[in-house]
Amino acid sequence: MLVAIKFCSNCGASVDVRIPPGEDRERFVCTACQMVHYQNPKLVVGTIVEHEGQLLICRRAIAPRHGYWTLPAGFHELGESTMAGAIRETHEEAGAVVTITAPFAHFDIPHIGQAYVFYRAVFDSLGYHAGPESLEVKLIDPADIPWKELAFDVVRIALELYVEDRKAGANNFHGGSVTVKPGASRDLGYCELSERLTVKLG
Amino acid sequence: MLVAIKFCSNCGASVDVRIPPGEDRERFVCTACQMVHYQNPKLVVGTIVEHEGQLLICRRAIAPRHGYWTLPAGFHELGESTMAGAIRETHEEAGAVVTITAPFAHFDIPHIGQAYVFYRAVFDSLGYHAGPESLEVKLIDPADIPWKELAFDVVRIALELYVEDRKAGANNFHGGSVTVKPGASRDLGYCELSERLTVKLG
Repeated sequence: MLVAIKFCSNCGASVDVRIPPGEDRERFVCTACQMVHYQNPKLVVGTIVEHEGQLLICRRAIAPRHGYWTLPAGFHELGESTMAGAIRETHEEAGAVVTITAPFAHFDIPHIGQAYVFYRAVFDSLGYHAGPESLEVKLIDPADIPWKELAFDVVRIALELYVEDRKAGANNFHGGSVTVKPGASRDLGYCELSERLTVKLG
Repeated sequence: MLVAIKFCSNCGASVDVRIPPGEDRERFVCTACQMVHYQNPKLVVGTIVEHEGQLLICRRAIAPRHGYWTLPAGFHELGESTMAGAIRETHEEAGAVVTITAPFAHFDIPHIGQAYVFYRAVFDSLGYHAGPESLEVKLIDPADIPWKELAFDVVRIALELYVEDRKAGANNFHGGSVTVKPGASRDLGYCELSERLTVKLG
């Protein structure tokens, strides 16, 4: 799970993988200055932008999954809140200026050390266009979601739950972990939602 | 906001702070191999463990805020979900084996590059004791929360909202950012909740 590092960012000496005193798991530790280089999961923040029954999707202009469809989302940056990050990414990738209306989901993806936080949002004023990381951006009916051309399992799972909620007239917040389906090849990217926690929003 | 690094963890050369091509903000970039060293906010995961109207709090045995009271919480580790991390921290710090019952809050703290995710939980079987990072652990009535001896503003804010919900008989999920109060000295740690997003759980 650790991302390989070779040198200490503090003193430039080589690092070892070992369990630091008082801890219970392996970390990269400097062989000279003893600094422990912690690694933690990264948050990805994004939106489901809703407009007159439709929602906003983007086709990726970058790797990984170039050409596949996704929701506007990207890495949470230092100095911003997750809501501010979700709004920023929606502007950068989809050229849309939006306001957050509700939390939608927190999905952990333990096997890749990421977690996705999605918010529901609406346009401040209707408008969108492909940013530099998108080939195309469009508003679509839920019935027209390109299920076979989605970029990531976490996006498919978010959209499946969103469509399910819409059909049921429900307004839910979803928690859970996106995990590799037992028996599935990890190369297939075939994941399912475990530790599922659905809470109805009043 | 960036945490200072001096050497490239990939090749050991020195790093510069600059805006990489195609990006919009400063990063540490290696002067030799050009690797960009991204830094992102870290998640802290914790619980509000409820038992017969009481809740579980811990007195810190470690810096920062040694001797002050907090909720069981700690850094989200690679390879686990936030729920699994919150359960792990509750076991490590409070010796309690718990099950998550509901999401309670997602609080960003942009000025320190952290976000806290709290879940509500119950004991699998009643039992708790101080782990190595705690001086003392106890179940208390909400009326007995030691407001003046709490370790962190984010914990105070979580507990204030929890007590408010309890009084109103409400079951809410809370979002927002813990930000330095305008005019307050940052040294005082005097923060408030902005971008507040309260959603009633059904």
